[in-house]
Amino acid sequence: MDDLIKKIIKFRDDRNWKQFHNAKDLAISLSLEANELLENFQWKSSHEALKNKAENIEDELADILIYSILFADEIKVDINEIISRKLQKNTIKYPINKSYGSNKKYNEL
Amino acid sequence: MDDLIKKIIKFRDDRNWKQFHNAKDLAISLSLEANELLENFQWKSSHEALKNKAENIEDELADILIYSILFADEIKVDINEIISRKLQKNTIKYPINKSYGSNKKYNEL
Amino acid sequence: MDDLIKKIIKFRDDRNWKQFHNAKDLAISLSLEANELLENFQWKSSHEALKNKAENIEDELADILIYSILFADEIKVDINEIISRKLQKNTIKYPINKSYGSNKKYNEL
Amino acid sequence: MDDLIKKIIKFRDDRNWKQFHNAKDLAISLSLEANELLENFQWKSSHEALKNKAENIEDELADILIYSILFADEIKVDINEIISRKLQKNTIKYPINKSYGSNKKYNEL
Repeated sequence: MDDLIKKIIKFRDDRNWKQFHNAKDLAISLSLEANELLENFQWKSSHEALKNKAENIEDELADILIYSILFADEIKVDINEIISRKLQKNTIKYPINKSYGSNKKYNEL
Repeated sequence: MDDLIKKIIKFRDDRNWKQFHNAKDLAISLSLEANELLENFQWKSSHEALKNKAENIEDELADILIYSILFADEIKVDINEIISRKLQKNTIKYPINKSYGSNKKYNEL
Repeated sequence: MDDLIKKIIKFRDDRNWKQFHNAKDLAISLSLEANELLENFQWKSSHEALKNKAENIEDELADILIYSILFADEIKVDINEIISRKLQKNTIKYPINKSYGSNKKYNEL
Repeated sequence: MDDLIKKIIKFRDDRNWKQFHNAKDLAISLSLEANELLENFQWKSSHEALKNKAENIEDELADILIYSILFADEIKVDINEIISRKLQKNTIKYPINKSYGSNKKYNEL
């Protein structure tokens, strides 16, 4: 992953795109990419989408990951650290005994 | 990262949540999380948002990464492989000489 | 509807909010509201969501309409005119004989 | 507007699309359309977007309104009634004296 992060930053810098990559526009980009992924499932079941659109689904997921890495670079955080900290918070928000097998949000448990 | 991926999968399985994690609802979740990140920037500049909401911004970014990893697990792909392949495609879509310093989409270059 | 549009504009102006309502932030707001609506359906069927969350679903739909009206005011267009023009375009994009009973996008028909 | 609502319903029924229009997929569609609107503002100011993309912006706004009307039809509510009720709620959430000239959310006022 460290090697990929370097490649992603190099891709951006080779094109002189850092000037556009403020946090607000990167957040917009993450919403756009998430919706390009979601578009594959419009009017369809998961099964139908995955059968017909597997490569596009994988590409859009990759775009979300790439923009997440660019966002982390812009706000100068390490993705391992923020994931690790958020997992700890989620463990408290969703105690196993209350959330086991439940599709409810933490504030409804 | 490999260790974190295992922790994320264990977090899901400890709660017996795989039953809800079909690809369509995970794609919905990625859009929801991207918009929770984006909400921090509504009516604000990047600077104003980062000054006042840094921890929430980091947490929402982490949620996007966590759901991306859960999505990759559900469709049985390796995130390193799909990022690597997408970077290759982007290199072709955005040749350096045409896209240098430009904020245009590939189909407008 | 004309009376409601006036009330929406008055609500904004009573709070001196026009200063924040540039088109970009209104577009962000429409994505945020659409995702607050969508959140009601996360991990759930339409039936389950409508049974338990009917009032919130109606409120979020109303927010989307309210922001659409504020956006139209900001860019100085009449919503009747843009809907009417878009319906004409959609009629050409989706000819009845090709799109009848099909869930495909126009570029896949 | 009443006449346009009838045209929108007729457009759907002429294509036998009601079978796809469950509330969950319509909520997905609203998020997709909001993000197609938002894409016009990626990496750009409001001014730059409106100067170069005015017609597409108007068309995407129209699509959001069209899907909002289709959603209201699916859940059998009148758009005038839900807008009117939500405006009353917003008046309580955002009292003029607290929210005047402020870009804060109601829970931060």
